[in-house]
Amino acid sequence: MSETLLSSRNLAFELYEVLDAEALTQRPRFADHNRETFDAAISTARGIAEELFAPHNRKSDEHEPQYVDGAAVLIPEVEPALRAFHEAGFLNATRDFEHGGMQLPNLLSQACFAHFQSANIATSSYSMLTMGVANLIEAFGNQEQKDRYLQPIIDGRFFGTMALTEPHAGSSLSDIRTKAEPHADGSYRIKGNKIFISGGDQPISENIVHMVLAKLPDAPPGVKGISLLLVPKFHVNDDGSLGARNDVTLAGLFHKMGWRGTTSTALNFGDNGECVGYLVGKPHAGLSYMFQMMNEARIGVGMGAIMLGYAGYLYSLDYARNRPQGRQPDGKDPSSPQISIVEHADVRRMLLTQKAYVEGAFDLGLYAARLFDDTHTLETAEQRQQALELLDLLTPIVKSWPSEFCLKANELAIQILGGHGYTREYPVEQYYRDNRLNPIHEGTHGIQSLDLLGRKVSQNGGAALKQLLKLINDCCQRASEHESLTALRQPLEQLLARLQAVTLALLGDLMSGKINQALANSALYLKVFGHMVIGWRWLEQAIRAEQGLARTDNAEEQAFYRGKLQAARYFLTWEVPSCHHDLAILEARDDTCLGMQDTWF
Amino acid sequence: MSETLLSSRNLAFELYEVLDAEALTQRPRFADHNRETFDAAISTARGIAEELFAPHNRKSDEHEPQYVDGAAVLIPEVEPALRAFHEAGFLNATRDFEHGGMQLPNLLSQACFAHFQSANIATSSYSMLTMGVANLIEAFGNQEQKDRYLQPIIDGRFFGTMALTEPHAGSSLSDIRTKAEPHADGSYRIKGNKIFISGGDQPISENIVHMVLAKLPDAPPGVKGISLLLVPKFHVNDDGSLGARNDVTLAGLFHKMGWRGTTSTALNFGDNGECVGYLVGKPHAGLSYMFQMMNEARIGVGMGAIMLGYAGYLYSLDYARNRPQGRQPDGKDPSSPQISIVEHADVRRMLLTQKAYVEGAFDLGLYAARLFDDTHTLETAEQRQQALELLDLLTPIVKSWPSEFCLKANELAIQILGGHGYTREYPVEQYYRDNRLNPIHEGTHGIQSLDLLGRKVSQNGGAALKQLLKLINDCCQRASEHESLTALRQPLEQLLARLQAVTLALLGDLMSGKINQALANSALYLKVFGHMVIGWRWLEQAIRAEQGLARTDNAEEQAFYRGKLQAARYFLTWEVPSCHHDLAILEARDDTCLGMQDTWF
Repeated sequence: MSETLLSSRNLAFELYEVLDAEALTQRPRFADHNRETFDAAISTARGIAEELFAPHNRKSDEHEPQYVDGAAVLIPEVEPALRAFHEAGFLNATRDFEHGGMQLPNLLSQACFAHFQSANIATSSYSMLTMGVANLIEAFGNQEQKDRYLQPIIDGRFFGTMALTEPHAGSSLSDIRTKAEPHADGSYRIKGNKIFISGGDQPISENIVHMVLAKLPDAPPGVKGISLLLVPKFHVNDDGSLGARNDVTLAGLFHKMGWRGTTSTALNFGDNGECVGYLVGKPHAGLSYMFQMMNEARIGVGMGAIMLGYAGYLYSLDYARNRPQGRQPDGKDPSSPQISIVEHADVRRMLLTQKAYVEGAFDLGLYAARLFDDTHTLETAEQRQQALELLDLLTPIVKSWPSEFCLKANELAIQILGGHGYTREYPVEQYYRDNRLNPIHEGTHGIQSLDLLGRKVSQNGGAALKQLLKLINDCCQRASEHESLTALRQPLEQLLARLQAVTLALLGDLMSGKINQALANSALYLKVFGHMVIGWRWLEQAIRAEQGLARTDNAEEQAFYRGKLQAARYFLTWEVPSCHHDLAILEARDDTCLGMQDTWF
Repeated sequence: MSETLLSSRNLAFELYEVLDAEALTQRPRFADHNRETFDAAISTARGIAEELFAPHNRKSDEHEPQYVDGAAVLIPEVEPALRAFHEAGFLNATRDFEHGGMQLPNLLSQACFAHFQSANIATSSYSMLTMGVANLIEAFGNQEQKDRYLQPIIDGRFFGTMALTEPHAGSSLSDIRTKAEPHADGSYRIKGNKIFISGGDQPISENIVHMVLAKLPDAPPGVKGISLLLVPKFHVNDDGSLGARNDVTLAGLFHKMGWRGTTSTALNFGDNGECVGYLVGKPHAGLSYMFQMMNEARIGVGMGAIMLGYAGYLYSLDYARNRPQGRQPDGKDPSSPQISIVEHADVRRMLLTQKAYVEGAFDLGLYAARLFDDTHTLETAEQRQQALELLDLLTPIVKSWPSEFCLKANELAIQILGGHGYTREYPVEQYYRDNRLNPIHEGTHGIQSLDLLGRKVSQNGGAALKQLLKLINDCCQRASEHESLTALRQPLEQLLARLQAVTLALLGDLMSGKINQALANSALYLKVFGHMVIGWRWLEQAIRAEQGLARTDNAEEQAFYRGKLQAARYFLTWEVPSCHHDLAILEARDDTCLGMQDTWF
């Protein structure tokens, strides 16, 4: 049977030929690991994902969570899947050995987790959120919070959520109204309503730890007045046993287009004035803490979008190989047998586009994961800081590019299956519905574009941007040693030069106060920047493919590398040059959209 | 309340300022009509659509048809809606007065029907299919078939279907296996299985008339051996009363991602060897007959895609005007009130894009409808033939362009609503799911691109293409009288010139036998051709808007025309120039996709 979650060969290519995962084992933190322990973890992940996650993916879509007597009811398959996930160690894959973890690099943890996302994005989400909460408490919680809440999370008994959005405050977090009033015992009383809280209720874990954004009475206005509160669903006694229910009410469930297996909840905090919460870290510093979680979440969202794209790509590829239909345009003899649709040029276009989007984004996602390892395992503080800056710069791309283009991949997967692809009898329509959430949650596309152009590219004097440009230039330099890659390298170099100039010009506008004008077409900037980054990652893959080709006589291996080169060619010669039109609009400071008036619609 | 189905002002602009619907009343066939009768029909359509179609649009999605005891069961709201539709005359809007029709121009019939498609695409589909079957029998059936089957359809008692697809033959119709064996009484015995038959069963009409493609025993191979058979669900006695059930079995229902209210059925013909059918027209000529229906259906599909886009555009516009969120980038004082999101440049971009796609396609759809009127009401046979050729050429664009770009509009509508847009508590996600069918049914996108480049542009020595190019050049000529339109006209002229050259080159390749190479990138050709056509229609609208502006001092009217000009500017300066990159690929006969090998994926 063909692989359904991701291509093992491609994953090995990424880990051992492109991203040099083995080099990580030279670092003290990962000294106990080697390629065998890495591969064992991956193999375990694949097994659990195939056996316990994939089989109920459709069922959890068809039988979405129900609101019954104030609680969310899920299909029974979710709990054993998450239990197996935890028992195999994946919830704590990156955590220290001494804290019950596998002390794996984040790169490997993401590679393992990718299997679960591909198999069942909805069930895997409960774990992703819980891992984020664990990291947040570990980084910013006090010892008591760690003992009381983090340890049960590590033990797999408590799950977590992030509670940001309110009915009138989504993208604009500065407008949240949830209040946290100090109480004599040092705790707080929380009052407010949150919506779209993923995993806000479920019957699986003993307890749920909500990380809630709220405002203290003396909060300054805006984002500088947001605090982070830990609010448990059930109180936890000093001996670790569960106490009474906290005053957190499940007000209802949202009914989503896809991603249905993950509860999306409306939560009321303090309907009876008795909702107890605990301040995490310092007052008014909540947003910066939450951004650590959000940045993890944004990379997680990107990886989720990639894996939904990947699952659709593999399914439609298998279908195209096995579905006979029609004949070549130049051979229309109706008595000849029909050919597999993979033979049709337009079907190949749709498959190659998917491959270019999905494998290009997959490479970037894993690159970001490895960068995350660098942020805390490189030798010097300066190196670690540099890695952090680069990761910060790339985060809006890792989040938004796959959300847009791997969704497009899913659209193409449906198209390849034709009428069948449109029915719920086949899985590709669900991938498409599931993936449509990704350009929205954890910061919409528009927010990502403002984050990139309005903040990230100029941060620290543009230090991260300079780093990135140097990396891309280095890659082009290495590519220039392969004459066969000339046609792939040049479009990237041209894009790079022009984007650099546009960036300087836009930053100049921002500094001279033309803020609205400079940011008006930030969506185009985001697209072009993303294409530059993915183009770079494809050129890097093409170099490794050339090196691989030079090494092997094996036909299957050669075909693998040829495919990489063809997908790189597709992306760099079909997709990358399309950005020049967007750049012209950016260069002209075109005000077509900015100048449109409400009354003209 | 804002309008929800379509903008009446925009419809009036199309009918009376762009397409000069009143001029049609000069033609003998429409002499009894005038603007008042046109507007009365539209007003009636809007009323029924709002009162009887829109209210159950969500319900028919949530409660899709069920298969019970061999029959399809629908929600009860569908029947009265379709009855009202028929009783108001819309089923026979274009039919002769003497045959119970309103003898309206097709332009007006489509304008009326657009309201039903916007309100409820699924319920309106039953009527669209039935109208197509009626036209098919009227054109090619014999008198007995007309008396026995057409009249009850006109009377609203029978519905119709088109039964083409088989499990192994979708895009490749030449491979159908359904057999029609001649019987002593002149009828045929049908045996075969059909899938994806829309409206193949429903409990609303007394009888269903299936138009079935099948092969006679002496059929030559391929598409030249396909015959058209009329197969009723129930036999019809000589006195018009219903007889026994024919041997047509509902084998099951497909469960679609969207468009759920229309049954999609698997039908078995002749499981018991007793399925009676009647040959329509001549043997082996069925495909050409069916293409008349398919061409109507393809325009209908295009209009459906447009109206789903339109409904989403209007909903997201209304939402954007009423949803406060955030502040301008240059005014981030958190104590200032939030602004409506329509004020954000990126939201304006998403609204303006929708407007450009939806209103551009709407203009083209109605233009095609008017052309259909020309095919049978222009004075000379030559004029009518010319109109037919132009309509033939435009049909793949009318079908495919809205299917792709109005779907994209729906994607943007969701994005504007953010998290809410992703929930089934709001209607935009359903429009998106419904619209995803349109690039698939009635000939996939790939099939349309082959039809356009491999057949339509070269037909009759390229006569239709020459006509179209002349029309576009005329439009550019008239636009050049408005200096304000220079920046809009030039991109179209540049595209036109380059597309013309590419077309000649590709046709040259086709004639010299490089067929697979010439057609390999037909999807890009289809996109560029479509953008040229829509760009032309926007330039035409811009001319009319300039004329309107010169006439009026009314602020609301001025805003309407300004909006038209801004949408034209968006499409012609943001979208049209993006095609040059596609043209470069076509010019180079790029073989990236054609050259990709199965084993390389």
